[in-house]
Amino acid sequence: MKINIQPAKGKLGILMPGLGAVATTIIAGVEAVKKGISKPIGSHTQMGTIRLGKRTENRNPKIKDFVPLASLNDIVFGGWDVFEDNVYDAAMTAEVLEPGLLFSVKEELEKIKPMKAAFDLNYAKNLTGTHVKTGTRLEMVNELMEDIKNFQKDNDLDRVVLLWTGSTEIYYEPTDVHSTLEKFEAGLAADDKLIAPSMLYAYAALKMGIGYVNGAPNLTVDIPALIELAKLTKSPIAGKDFKTGQTLMKTILAPGLAARSLGVRGWFSTNILGNRDGLVLDDPDNFKTKEVSKLGVLEDIFKPEDNPDLYGDIFHKIRINYYPPHGDSKESWDNIDIFGWLGYKMQIKINFLCRDSILAAPVALDLALFLDLAKRAGMAGVQEWLSFYLKSPQTAPGLPAENDIFKQLQKLENTLRYIMGEDLITHLGLDYYDDMFAGQE
Amino acid sequence: MKINIQPAKGKLGILMPGLGAVATTIIAGVEAVKKGISKPIGSHTQMGTIRLGKRTENRNPKIKDFVPLASLNDIVFGGWDVFEDNVYDAAMTAEVLEPGLLFSVKEELEKIKPMKAAFDLNYAKNLTGTHVKTGTRLEMVNELMEDIKNFQKDNDLDRVVLLWTGSTEIYYEPTDVHSTLEKFEAGLAADDKLIAPSMLYAYAALKMGIGYVNGAPNLTVDIPALIELAKLTKSPIAGKDFKTGQTLMKTILAPGLAARSLGVRGWFSTNILGNRDGLVLDDPDNFKTKEVSKLGVLEDIFKPEDNPDLYGDIFHKIRINYYPPHGDSKESWDNIDIFGWLGYKMQIKINFLCRDSILAAPVALDLALFLDLAKRAGMAGVQEWLSFYLKSPQTAPGLPAENDIFKQLQKLENTLRYIMGEDLITHLGLDYYDDMFAGQE
Amino acid sequence: MKINIQPAKGKLGILMPGLGAVATTIIAGVEAVKKGISKPIGSHTQMGTIRLGKRTENRNPKIKDFVPLASLNDIVFGGWDVFEDNVYDAAMTAEVLEPGLLFSVKEELEKIKPMKAAFDLNYAKNLTGTHVKTGTRLEMVNELMEDIKNFQKDNDLDRVVLLWTGSTEIYYEPTDVHSTLEKFEAGLAADDKLIAPSMLYAYAALKMGIGYVNGAPNLTVDIPALIELAKLTKSPIAGKDFKTGQTLMKTILAPGLAARSLGVRGWFSTNILGNRDGLVLDDPDNFKTKEVSKLGVLEDIFKPEDNPDLYGDIFHKIRINYYPPHGDSKESWDNIDIFGWLGYKMQIKINFLCRDSILAAPVALDLALFLDLAKRAGMAGVQEWLSFYLKSPQTAPGLPAENDIFKQLQKLENTLRYIMGEDLITHLGLDYYDDMFAGQE
Amino acid sequence: MKINIQPAKGKLGILMPGLGAVATTIIAGVEAVKKGISKPIGSHTQMGTIRLGKRTENRNPKIKDFVPLASLNDIVFGGWDVFEDNVYDAAMTAEVLEPGLLFSVKEELEKIKPMKAAFDLNYAKNLTGTHVKTGTRLEMVNELMEDIKNFQKDNDLDRVVLLWTGSTEIYYEPTDVHSTLEKFEAGLAADDKLIAPSMLYAYAALKMGIGYVNGAPNLTVDIPALIELAKLTKSPIAGKDFKTGQTLMKTILAPGLAARSLGVRGWFSTNILGNRDGLVLDDPDNFKTKEVSKLGVLEDIFKPEDNPDLYGDIFHKIRINYYPPHGDSKESWDNIDIFGWLGYKMQIKINFLCRDSILAAPVALDLALFLDLAKRAGMAGVQEWLSFYLKSPQTAPGLPAENDIFKQLQKLENTLRYIMGEDLITHLGLDYYDDMFAGQE
Repeated sequence: MKINIQPAKGKLGILMPGLGAVATTIIAGVEAVKKGISKPIGSHTQMGTIRLGKRTENRNPKIKDFVPLASLNDIVFGGWDVFEDNVYDAAMTAEVLEPGLLFSVKEELEKIKPMKAAFDLNYAKNLTGTHVKTGTRLEMVNELMEDIKNFQKDNDLDRVVLLWTGSTEIYYEPTDVHSTLEKFEAGLAADDKLIAPSMLYAYAALKMGIGYVNGAPNLTVDIPALIELAKLTKSPIAGKDFKTGQTLMKTILAPGLAARSLGVRGWFSTNILGNRDGLVLDDPDNFKTKEVSKLGVLEDIFKPEDNPDLYGDIFHKIRINYYPPHGDSKESWDNIDIFGWLGYKMQIKINFLCRDSILAAPVALDLALFLDLAKRAGMAGVQEWLSFYLKSPQTAPGLPAENDIFKQLQKLENTLRYIMGEDLITHLGLDYYDDMFAGQE
Repeated sequence: MKINIQPAKGKLGILMPGLGAVATTIIAGVEAVKKGISKPIGSHTQMGTIRLGKRTENRNPKIKDFVPLASLNDIVFGGWDVFEDNVYDAAMTAEVLEPGLLFSVKEELEKIKPMKAAFDLNYAKNLTGTHVKTGTRLEMVNELMEDIKNFQKDNDLDRVVLLWTGSTEIYYEPTDVHSTLEKFEAGLAADDKLIAPSMLYAYAALKMGIGYVNGAPNLTVDIPALIELAKLTKSPIAGKDFKTGQTLMKTILAPGLAARSLGVRGWFSTNILGNRDGLVLDDPDNFKTKEVSKLGVLEDIFKPEDNPDLYGDIFHKIRINYYPPHGDSKESWDNIDIFGWLGYKMQIKINFLCRDSILAAPVALDLALFLDLAKRAGMAGVQEWLSFYLKSPQTAPGLPAENDIFKQLQKLENTLRYIMGEDLITHLGLDYYDDMFAGQE
Repeated sequence: MKINIQPAKGKLGILMPGLGAVATTIIAGVEAVKKGISKPIGSHTQMGTIRLGKRTENRNPKIKDFVPLASLNDIVFGGWDVFEDNVYDAAMTAEVLEPGLLFSVKEELEKIKPMKAAFDLNYAKNLTGTHVKTGTRLEMVNELMEDIKNFQKDNDLDRVVLLWTGSTEIYYEPTDVHSTLEKFEAGLAADDKLIAPSMLYAYAALKMGIGYVNGAPNLTVDIPALIELAKLTKSPIAGKDFKTGQTLMKTILAPGLAARSLGVRGWFSTNILGNRDGLVLDDPDNFKTKEVSKLGVLEDIFKPEDNPDLYGDIFHKIRINYYPPHGDSKESWDNIDIFGWLGYKMQIKINFLCRDSILAAPVALDLALFLDLAKRAGMAGVQEWLSFYLKSPQTAPGLPAENDIFKQLQKLENTLRYIMGEDLITHLGLDYYDDMFAGQE
Repeated sequence: MKINIQPAKGKLGILMPGLGAVATTIIAGVEAVKKGISKPIGSHTQMGTIRLGKRTENRNPKIKDFVPLASLNDIVFGGWDVFEDNVYDAAMTAEVLEPGLLFSVKEELEKIKPMKAAFDLNYAKNLTGTHVKTGTRLEMVNELMEDIKNFQKDNDLDRVVLLWTGSTEIYYEPTDVHSTLEKFEAGLAADDKLIAPSMLYAYAALKMGIGYVNGAPNLTVDIPALIELAKLTKSPIAGKDFKTGQTLMKTILAPGLAARSLGVRGWFSTNILGNRDGLVLDDPDNFKTKEVSKLGVLEDIFKPEDNPDLYGDIFHKIRINYYPPHGDSKESWDNIDIFGWLGYKMQIKINFLCRDSILAAPVALDLALFLDLAKRAGMAGVQEWLSFYLKSPQTAPGLPAENDIFKQLQKLENTLRYIMGEDLITHLGLDYYDDMFAGQE
């Protein structure tokens, strides 16, 4: 099958609900890159290469030179927030980037002013902003769609994607109102409080045929009603919760242990961070949402049901601690109790002195660019190949998720090769060895 | 192509030059497993599973149940050593396994007595054993072949593999005598000191059509002369140096960083260990052999020439320190200086409290079993698909090595699927999504 | 003043409420030491030396050879517990010591059977034992005194000390019933639930003129009523909560930072442990008791009110996590954010792979021996010089506690020198330099 | 004895051989403090308090308010270097302090230009500067004295101290030429190469009655010849090698382990740093000087000869690795193998992310200020009470050094109390407890 991809002509708008640490870091960064001041390190689309053909062909183009992505120069940013600070002020408050760097893109950042947020305090008690919409859920959805249209018109955009960069909402599970599109729309009309604010943004986007991706662990598009809508309007969606920091390390290391059939008896993970995200997660209701998202990855990778001797009895505990002295410089410490040959015990300790928003920003950028690509390639509904970037992948109903980052990477790369008409790579590599089976009789 | 694999009937002999910590740990472990006392944790052939077909088929057999490997019950061990201790005494000296466990297999271990080693003190100055052969290189080779034949006959074996579990030899590079089989054989006759002891074992094995794998970083079979011999006699060979401990962690973590286009500025690796291997590596000449083997992996994974902005300026330093208090409980500490979005710096520290021989034993066992499988499958010469287990993979001439453990794993798994007639896995997975390209116009 | 110390003749009974991990480790250890199988490492009385006189005199006797302590050979152990297991069975359950070691003292341990505990489930909800006394508080106190008398008689003891080695009780603060001895005794008669079980043991002991020390962070003797009783009966008491593990490290390191006027901005402490103590502390009510005890030490050492620029804004957080894979092998991880010259930031990370009961046992033993010494030296009431061993020192009313372990050590050592008539040591040391002030005009 | 201390009137010159990272950090810092931009954190004289009298008196003045030290405002800096960069340029090159801070004191720093250094390339092969004196040793000494006089006159100084902040010289031991002042002076005249450059500065200072302290591990004043000279001219001297980083931590932690009679089996210390000091120490000859200085501290604190069961078999290893990615941000990692009750093993790991010059600068400042105080108090020769600041204390002949930082601190504090006529503190504290010996019969 030959895939037809629309070219990335004109401008691409990236709209973000939540203009806090992550969003301002993306925006400031992209503007700095445009000016040639800095480099988009950590963005696999911009900096990463992909092998094409045989190893000996030496074809390793950058991803952005291989697939027709929007250029960074064509991106226009916007968003909503419960605080009315412009992006420059919000970035100064977030204290992620150095004042000197922010100063160099001050003009561009000051221009971006948040639209009023669709918000419900019940979903994030520790947030106190007042720059919010006031109507019913239905009214808010309509306002959001109006916001998007105006943004598109004002900036003369060709296409738009929506990227949730807001805080983690409290924990909730899907209920009847989330089960079909019809019930969901009835719920909007009835101002049903079980519809979370993040769903309003997602509904507005998908209704307009716009792709949506979710940087937080909120349920949002992971409900039948919105999956139905995405298919209907042929809009791409992906899973949730940017995979950064400790979970990134976990989905790197766990496949390595599983590859070697090393047993795991316990995995203790603690985090200290002092940014707004840390403050929100200090509320147990919000932490639970995060915990559920973070806990799942090990089970999927280790498959205890298939490997009871190795992984049938893992004690997995995750703690997040609000610790103001570190600000956005999140730090994780993991203790992993493993066992090897004859059951002998060993331990691995990992101390990751990372930066929350620095790791999240390029992930968010890549997701936005790939979502736009997916739309132009006619790819509709759940985009599992983007699970590489997410703590909680979204899959077809009944299909177990794949959290091993290396399988996710191969899925992503082979998807790119596939839509571009290149050979898939299996790493079999028998063709390098002419006489491999010389001993066959 | 349909691959014909001879069945694993009768007994398999595993002969090891060097009956020290690693070899005695393998032997004691396999004997304990045979008795049902313990489990072969860490052996991917025995404990690991392999996915076959689609994710939804739920076909995940153990590898040993999928490919026709020799059964542990059919293995007979033997070997050579410069000390004449039997395997029980050597295991007690090595202090890797608990006395209680060793006691439970004492009878089996005491029976195994080392044959006299082919040895040259110039290649390992810190070793003082006297249980050695005395003739010229040619005489030693002939004696080794005689040893192998007798071992095979005495134990009524169907097949044999050779596995180097001896110490690291001093650093040397290939010279003229290593360049062709003819020159090598002339060198044997002339007792050329440039032929290392480990090459004598390899030559003896390959000459007899027996597979050989090298657990240490010595050059050994990685020379044109012996590759030529392996092809001639249709014997399988693989790379060198069991991938355990710090390098294992490195080839797990580095692909994860590269996957995310996170830059690396420095990687400092230090080790403390107190076993015989630590003592041998305290000699700078022997350490150099190890260092070269360990240093290479990052360069291959990060490909600085293709990614100069990310990996063009890595300062990579490795230290191994002899530290008697820890015995075989090797401990590594890594500091990794990375940078992300806009060049912001982050650090990863990994402290691995491992056990050297516990990690090496299952790797050695798997290599022996797969080498035997390769021979029965008519696979001759360099077996790149076994690079999964080795710090220094061996490849076809001119073909860059692949050190990313996850690509190595996929190569191994797809090779197994291939020879067993199963579909290769690419992780593309489009068939789970019927309407993926619904948006195509 | 010449201090008259009664000699340590006859036998000393050590009675412990709570025969769990700590108590059984003490008992098994002392019995093993008596048999010459092992050494009382970590016991400063048995292994530590004390300098006497000038540095150049080279007088450094062991403490036990300097002050007249009871000999380990004269100690008899007993105790109470809510489970009726004998000490051997309890030690096997605790899994602190290796079975081989326990087996070697099995006979001695089996003989020691717990008396029924004075218990109130409201003070430790996670404990389920049924081997308990059933009467009112007054009846229980009378039974405890009877228990002590019988123990003394049955074992032909010269003296007895009481050492709380039970679990941490829930958090409570002193109330009216704790304010005077008279009210306390009225409370006993009225079976006042505000009197904690641990106070019953303390009251029983002090009433009989027996010293009492408290290994847990419970309030117990740190109330006016029992201090009054201690003075009345001339019984020695000390503070609470054995200083081990993380807090031990903290009171070692913090004085070092303060000595150098290095500022501290944050101190994050997390613990993982899997023993019964960990289970009890998993209940927030019990954890609070521990937290209060652990939090205080930094404040006292850093004195933020005197040093606001350095220590006026410390964020101090402590977490204890129940983590079964580690059992009694408690592990702590600390991150300390410090700042130096011109405010530049630095970090210290400490990872302590310790063993809870192994650290506590010698502390408990020393306290028992010193308490007995104090009694024989006529030292009554609060023994601040024993604060060296305790997380929460007890002091004279209104006197700030001293948590710096090195000042505590000097207090302990100079107290010993004082009661033995030796010169106190000030480390001035001018007498080594005859001409120190040669430049004086 | 009443000590007469001359007041700190007029200006104090601090002259430093070696205007590199440490010296420029001191100078820039003091200038920033003078301007009120920053605070002298880490300087115990400026920020630290000292307790006077009883705990209940609450007399805790800052040290600088208690003893008559020179005010920072009265300090004038100067020095020598092998490079001719002024202090501003040298500070920019050193990359210790942020450009913004340096810019704020640029004017003051640019004024300070190094005098030509007395240098001998044989003592530091990795240094390549050419701003050096060219004569014989005697000529260089005379030039140095001339330099000092001119500096004093040009700046209208009341007093001067010399502070070695240069690199570590290669390892050498005292020989005949160092054994008496007479032989030393003959050696100067004969241009004896065994007289190290650092000794020329020391000789010049002491000859002029000026105090000298040595921030590096070079022998320098720790030879009979110069001790003799110091006594003769009544000049104060102290030990060598600023106690910072890993050794600071070691002399904090080791006394804590010894206090608790916890055994030590091994102590592995590794460092990574990328500044000029790191480069110099990459030369094994220079590293040896450092290693000897660093290795000694444990032995003195643990006293293995008195405590063979605890400390008789310590394996102590120190490694320093040049690692450019970290620059001046030195990082240490320690693994300490300890054992407790009954010999059970535990481990402590310390990872110190420190900053070399940030830790050294306040130590150097304090030493200079105390040296000046000592001179004014008529204190001549070896000042053991300053060993608190030094890796290698200097003591009276035959007197064992005291490396326990807490004993050193008490010596320092009691010395200050002594010269100011305050009571010494012993921490006995019996006077808080009136009825302590109420039980005495």
